[in-house]
Amino acid sequence: MNHEHYMKLALQEAKKAFDKDEVPVGAVVVMKDQIIAKGYNQVELLQDATAHAEILALTSAFQGLGCKYLPEATLYVTLEPCLMCSGALFWSKIGQVIYGASDSKNGYRCYCNTSPFHPKTEIQHGLLADECAQLMKDFFKQKR
Amino acid sequence: MNHEHYMKLALQEAKKAFDKDEVPVGAVVVMKDQIIAKGYNQVELLQDATAHAEILALTSAFQGLGCKYLPEATLYVTLEPCLMCSGALFWSKIGQVIYGASDSKNGYRCYCNTSPFHPKTEIQHGLLADECAQLMKDFFKQKR
Repeated sequence: MNHEHYMKLALQEAKKAFDKDEVPVGAVVVMKDQIIAKGYNQVELLQDATAHAEILALTSAFQGLGCKYLPEATLYVTLEPCLMCSGALFWSKIGQVIYGASDSKNGYRCYCNTSPFHPKTEIQHGLLADECAQLMKDFFKQKR
Repeated sequence: MNHEHYMKLALQEAKKAFDKDEVPVGAVVVMKDQIIAKGYNQVELLQDATAHAEILALTSAFQGLGCKYLPEATLYVTLEPCLMCSGALFWSKIGQVIYGASDSKNGYRCYCNTSPFHPKTEIQHGLLADECAQLMKDFFKQKR
């Protein structure tokens, strides 16, 4: 699997959020080298505090596959998942989570004293972290 | 507010889940002494690992009010929220969370070294805990 390729697609999703004045986080779900779901943060548009990129991508994957577990899938997301999204990923039993930038404010690592993911889920981080983080910085800069 | 009354309604929701062979957890969202949303676990029916009672009740409340924050609302739920649901409750800035039974396996207290809720959210637990827990015990007993 070309991880960088898929993270770039997650970045494209994040840019869609940016263009719609949403906090720019994007996610893609990949299985057997095929994209099965994508999502970007839509909290403002939907006025739904749960409409994070990961949740939208996961629910889209569940619906597409008609299946509540994703052990063979990888989720690429531009930002370290928050507690809610980490919990959703736990329940999905997803095979792998690869995230870009760290989130020192709301990332799961701020809260958890033990891994919140399923024991079988592999975690990687730091892929294209600078690009992922820059998009967030640019977003919050223009908000000030 | 009559907390016991609303927890009994959450229990009614949980019983709907039980009758549909879902893990029996129910939730209601109350604002100004009116029920604005209800939900029960529908993970199996929807084949969606995120379809917990709290998430369904919260998203229903967001949609009903057209608003992503619920500072004046109280969520009653029969079981201690998991990490995902605690994270969703955090983002909602809900005023109060009252849960019944503790969940020593998947409750947020198994993972968190600090409160996962918004600083302004008040937490209570143990309301009708025995009834809430009994429903879970009955469910898993018949599964064995």
